[in-house]
Amino acid sequence: MTTPTPNDIIAAVDALEDEAVALLAELVRFDTTLGNETPAQDRIAAVFADLGLEVDRFAIDLAAIEDHPGFSPVDWDYDDKINVVGVHRSRHNAGRSLILNGHIDVVPTGPADMWASPPFEPVVRDGWMWGRGAGDMKAGIVAYTIAFKALKSLGVAPAAPLYLQSVVEEECTGNGALACLVRGYRADAAIIPEPFERSLMTAQMGVMWFRVHVRGKPAHVLDTAAGANAIEAAFALVEALKRLETRWNAPEARHPAFAGIEHPINFNLGVITGGEWPSSVPTECRFTMRVGFFPGVSTASVREAVTETIAEAAARHPTLRESPPRVEFFGFQAEGCTVDAEGEMMRLLADIHRRLDGEPPPLRATTATTDARFFNLYGDLPATCYGPHAERIHALDERVDLASVHAVTRVLALFIAEWCGLEPAD
Amino acid sequence: MTTPTPNDIIAAVDALEDEAVALLAELVRFDTTLGNETPAQDRIAAVFADLGLEVDRFAIDLAAIEDHPGFSPVDWDYDDKINVVGVHRSRHNAGRSLILNGHIDVVPTGPADMWASPPFEPVVRDGWMWGRGAGDMKAGIVAYTIAFKALKSLGVAPAAPLYLQSVVEEECTGNGALACLVRGYRADAAIIPEPFERSLMTAQMGVMWFRVHVRGKPAHVLDTAAGANAIEAAFALVEALKRLETRWNAPEARHPAFAGIEHPINFNLGVITGGEWPSSVPTECRFTMRVGFFPGVSTASVREAVTETIAEAAARHPTLRESPPRVEFFGFQAEGCTVDAEGEMMRLLADIHRRLDGEPPPLRATTATTDARFFNLYGDLPATCYGPHAERIHALDERVDLASVHAVTRVLALFIAEWCGLEPAD
Repeated sequence: MTTPTPNDIIAAVDALEDEAVALLAELVRFDTTLGNETPAQDRIAAVFADLGLEVDRFAIDLAAIEDHPGFSPVDWDYDDKINVVGVHRSRHNAGRSLILNGHIDVVPTGPADMWASPPFEPVVRDGWMWGRGAGDMKAGIVAYTIAFKALKSLGVAPAAPLYLQSVVEEECTGNGALACLVRGYRADAAIIPEPFERSLMTAQMGVMWFRVHVRGKPAHVLDTAAGANAIEAAFALVEALKRLETRWNAPEARHPAFAGIEHPINFNLGVITGGEWPSSVPTECRFTMRVGFFPGVSTASVREAVTETIAEAAARHPTLRESPPRVEFFGFQAEGCTVDAEGEMMRLLADIHRRLDGEPPPLRATTATTDARFFNLYGDLPATCYGPHAERIHALDERVDLASVHAVTRVLALFIAEWCGLEPAD
Repeated sequence: MTTPTPNDIIAAVDALEDEAVALLAELVRFDTTLGNETPAQDRIAAVFADLGLEVDRFAIDLAAIEDHPGFSPVDWDYDDKINVVGVHRSRHNAGRSLILNGHIDVVPTGPADMWASPPFEPVVRDGWMWGRGAGDMKAGIVAYTIAFKALKSLGVAPAAPLYLQSVVEEECTGNGALACLVRGYRADAAIIPEPFERSLMTAQMGVMWFRVHVRGKPAHVLDTAAGANAIEAAFALVEALKRLETRWNAPEARHPAFAGIEHPINFNLGVITGGEWPSSVPTECRFTMRVGFFPGVSTASVREAVTETIAEAAARHPTLRESPPRVEFFGFQAEGCTVDAEGEMMRLLADIHRRLDGEPPPLRATTATTDARFFNLYGDLPATCYGPHAERIHALDERVDLASVHAVTRVLALFIAEWCGLEPAD
């Protein structure tokens, strides 16, 4: 075997640039919102098979993960929750193994009529691709897939096990990535090409979801005083929770990794529904909130703080006092974590980036959560995020910078070559 | 014909007391929430036919009413909106004609599990009947039906046209009663046995519904500052509307009929829905409000005040300024009205009540609306409400005092006899 040079590898990635854009457009066309991931996963499985990878397409076994400390409870069924892992087995196992992980699920689009173009009909213009999930994070899946394919086109393959993971539910639970971990997938490092503008992630927040069920006392509006308006009561609870957000953001309360971020702790009132008839005082209101918290803070203590804040606000409320709200924790129960920037994987990734760009990548403490927590907290292997530049993820008119996708693909191809080493392909 | 004495009439009503309770239970068993009224209306039509009345069962013709000043716009279809009128034609027409009107529709139940017994399974205990609509106002329909039947059992009938109306949509538009008016039904007076504790209604509030559509700017919660939370923006608009409520309730702003009521103007935040994903800043929120206003205030001026209040609050809001909310007026666009307590109908009704009870009925200015407005404002005929005692209408565990239903039935039978006069039945 003639070992390809870095320039050979870069040239091989460059030769696949159009194919990468076409694959990304194909993936964006799948609506992979929660519960709709399977057709896209089947397509990914076919792509992995075409690359000569062994394909492990498996349904998440709820019983196998539900007692894990990283598990997030759900109120939907798990009959058709498919993960796909493309497995490369090395003949020589001379290098270090690697997991490249991405999530196929996307968040809802919001009102489609507020998009400049339909969210699942990708549009390429001026070097960007628009579409829900284009950035978060189908571009990342494309980047690692094309990186592997570029090496193959040179007649080489990683000299260590390489796992390409396409998982579900990164956006709501992380149970997809958790299921891979529980299934036994381990490696010497993991990289998730989340759309973090080619920064290296060194810390991520904890994230928790919960739903609050408020019950008022229904009455005819001819006497609003007779009933407690459940919607207005919910507003009072939201205000109390917002005061908790302010306390957690106080400079003296901060984790050092987030000291420089203006507003690291974000409590988001994401969903509300209440009442059923304009002329009846509403009996019920439900709202869902997402809260962030610092690494090192346990999910148990966050649940306690949320529960206590609501209980105290209810105790002060004229009618909630007699009808205490119910708090239901579902979805993300995700601890925060940090990644050692001086670890071998981080240093190599930074070095390759520097060689291509002329300067090292910025480090990033993210106020969101990612699946990297599972590897770092429960898998005993270092994991970071390093991915393309995208805009308006989780919002309208999401788009990804295609040049950045290409740059990430180059870096990942070089990283695989140097981290795993290379051997002749079959 | 031997003209029956008042005592004969009372005895005839008393003889039908069990039948009245059975008919009420039968009607309560129909779920007549909005859109589900027809089976109960068909049953009413059969009851009217059994009484020998001519039955006018007709669908509301939207085109015939939509330009009427009393019309309320709707966003549901009118394919199966059935009114039923039982018409008694007198042979002699010696007396004054009368309309007895009731509505078959009921408001939603709220959470059925919060009821002591299922809302459409009537329970009789301790002299009360529990069930949605038992008081508001199937008991009123039963009262006028049994009053007429009692006279018939004595071999007599009203000596003037009598119209028993069972209408739809009193609880949301009044378009059922309006359709009767537009169809040509007129009389010398009208009584609606709404569950007002055997008081005589002398004034009712205007009522209006509207829906506010708020649009924020969606964003990932990792940067909540980038988006405007549409739910929180809606809260700000609700607060501005509540300040308008306070101003309208000010003592100096009051209509004299409502001077003695503690809080006559009620703005009810009845329904809210917003957001779709806990980890996305919500793009959209809609809320529905019901506002009350005094008689003599035009619906046009209320719409203007509501629209201006929202526009001003939006102009002061950091993000609504750029994305003004949309206000949609639907359902009740109902003016208030007053009834002359010294009119002949009112004096006769009060006198009969006094004869039976020993004292005159209390007068009532109600903070709700009723279908009486159509007769008073647009029909040029005096209409009041006089009906049984009920509790928790529009709330959980609605119930009606059966003794009060019986007392109202006696009063209505005597009123028919004295207002219309009597002639031999066929």
